[in-house]
Amino acid sequence: MTTKRIGARTVRFSEPPSVLGYASIVGKKEGEGPLSEYFDFIYEDSYLGEKTWERAESRMQKEAFERAAEKSGGSTGDVQLIFAGDLLNQCIATSFGLRSTGVPLCGLYGACSTFAEGMMLAAMTIDGGFAERAAAVASSHFCTSERQYRTPLDYGAQRTPTAQWTVTGAGACVLGPEGDGPFVTHATAGRIVDLGVTDQNNMGAAMAPAAKDTLSALFEDTGTSPADYDLILTGDLGAVGLELLFELFKKDGVAFNQNLGDCGLLIFDRDRQDVHSGGSGCGCSASVFCSYVLGRMREGAIRKLVLAGTGAMLSPTSTMQGESVPGICHAVVLSTSKEG
Amino acid sequence: MTTKRIGARTVRFSEPPSVLGYASIVGKKEGEGPLSEYFDFIYEDSYLGEKTWERAESRMQKEAFERAAEKSGGSTGDVQLIFAGDLLNQCIATSFGLRSTGVPLCGLYGACSTFAEGMMLAAMTIDGGFAERAAAVASSHFCTSERQYRTPLDYGAQRTPTAQWTVTGAGACVLGPEGDGPFVTHATAGRIVDLGVTDQNNMGAAMAPAAKDTLSALFEDTGTSPADYDLILTGDLGAVGLELLFELFKKDGVAFNQNLGDCGLLIFDRDRQDVHSGGSGCGCSASVFCSYVLGRMREGAIRKLVLAGTGAMLSPTSTMQGESVPGICHAVVLSTSKEG
Repeated sequence: MTTKRIGARTVRFSEPPSVLGYASIVGKKEGEGPLSEYFDFIYEDSYLGEKTWERAESRMQKEAFERAAEKSGGSTGDVQLIFAGDLLNQCIATSFGLRSTGVPLCGLYGACSTFAEGMMLAAMTIDGGFAERAAAVASSHFCTSERQYRTPLDYGAQRTPTAQWTVTGAGACVLGPEGDGPFVTHATAGRIVDLGVTDQNNMGAAMAPAAKDTLSALFEDTGTSPADYDLILTGDLGAVGLELLFELFKKDGVAFNQNLGDCGLLIFDRDRQDVHSGGSGCGCSASVFCSYVLGRMREGAIRKLVLAGTGAMLSPTSTMQGESVPGICHAVVLSTSKEG
Repeated sequence: MTTKRIGARTVRFSEPPSVLGYASIVGKKEGEGPLSEYFDFIYEDSYLGEKTWERAESRMQKEAFERAAEKSGGSTGDVQLIFAGDLLNQCIATSFGLRSTGVPLCGLYGACSTFAEGMMLAAMTIDGGFAERAAAVASSHFCTSERQYRTPLDYGAQRTPTAQWTVTGAGACVLGPEGDGPFVTHATAGRIVDLGVTDQNNMGAAMAPAAKDTLSALFEDTGTSPADYDLILTGDLGAVGLELLFELFKKDGVAFNQNLGDCGLLIFDRDRQDVHSGGSGCGCSASVFCSYVLGRMREGAIRKLVLAGTGAMLSPTSTMQGESVPGICHAVVLSTSKEG
């Protein structure tokens, strides 16, 4: 077996897997944001007509996956392996959401990096010859997250300016060995980076050093710089974290040419929508990527990009025990050309 | 790319990855069980000298991984990708446990199937040429699990006879493209199977149909029957679940020749140790596999086996909301011969 590794941490796919289909389902607030026209479906009701918010989140995953499979020119049964996850304890949005599909499933936990992690593993699955079709799926829901991580919604707690707003949404992307692209050309797996940030309301700050670590490895391993990409998209650092990442790179003399963006800043209009530092949650990068981003790539407006999924790997228990917030960032490179 | 798929759901590795090193760390009760001599280290103190049980569980993961890396004839830095998970909310035993290693990490959530899921993905990573060394790591801890899933330990709640005892332990296995084996020859990814069992104290019953589903697919795809394996090892159905699995296969006319076993039954002596239906938890199959099982394979006493990791993909929230228990089972085949 010829190695597909280049440099210290990056994989270059020998036959870059192609995006075959993708879909996103979001909630009302997301549907009122700037990306409105790109989503496949917008639910006005936070329950989606279900009995609980958890069931609603499960249903978003299921519907996003079903639509992505359909748009890939096949059916859910053609997908041989799904990589999926969410933020809920024991990832129940995933296990209940994808239960009825009958498709083999690898459950992931990477907090908000889950979708990028799934894209990396789905691409490895295709390029390794282990499946003809593999999918990445992720979701989050504002109401399921708030009551699990913070306080009951009815309590009406105030939010700090650094806090992010968990996106109600799901995204799904189906990859295959042949297709018209965009193509997944490279992936760099993240490692845990923890600089000791203990403020659970400032996850952007906790995740920025992880994004710096993985993006630096990717640039070095591939011999590229930010200028080689039309877009470098983190998901989701929010305004505070993105500014920090910008500063961290500036210290190294690395500049971004207006091409550094964040899914959490794209999905909401912060002037108009009350979301503080921006959007977050597994469903944020998943729904932004599987709507606007892949749409703009198919239009040719974005030809080459990095999706750098960032996760804050804490739990309410670790916070109560006084632990800091470990960050992680998984990056995948997509290009409209197979040659990258 | 030549496909490595055979049949509907199984992957046959083109160059079966080899086990290079493995290690297990367990707690006192596990150390008093029948596999005592096989574990790398037994901690008498449930805190491992740490401030919290969560930190203790993290430390078991770290130490199991470090020992496995060392026993593979290298160091932790030689491992290019770890697949790891645990049972805690947001998988904090993993993110905090492997934080200091600096090794790229893909977080998994597969409940008690996590270790088998990790072995499958690590083998795909090696056989696909994506890393020179990849590892699977998983852990659980009786005390962190009890207080998260059930009641505070001090409450002293009674347990039903069908309940299983969460193992305090961690296991780690390092794979590479070359070595003396045992070799991972095949993998069959599981899908969610849910027959509507709602008793969270009888997870064996919820998981047995998933084990049946995946094992049936593996046998069919590879043209094998139970008699072709020295051992078919579920992890962890416990006594109740294993009996159910036996019955489910019996209905299909498939017989097991005393070669059907369960990690949860191997790790404890149920006559002597008060564990009801047997052991469970991500750390159960991980520690049994990375001690006794791989040890017996290296001795040549077991030449070919299936590890069928079984997970109950519920959460306390889903149970409180009246949901049933979705089961999943990921299977890997290991053989002392590269040809399987």
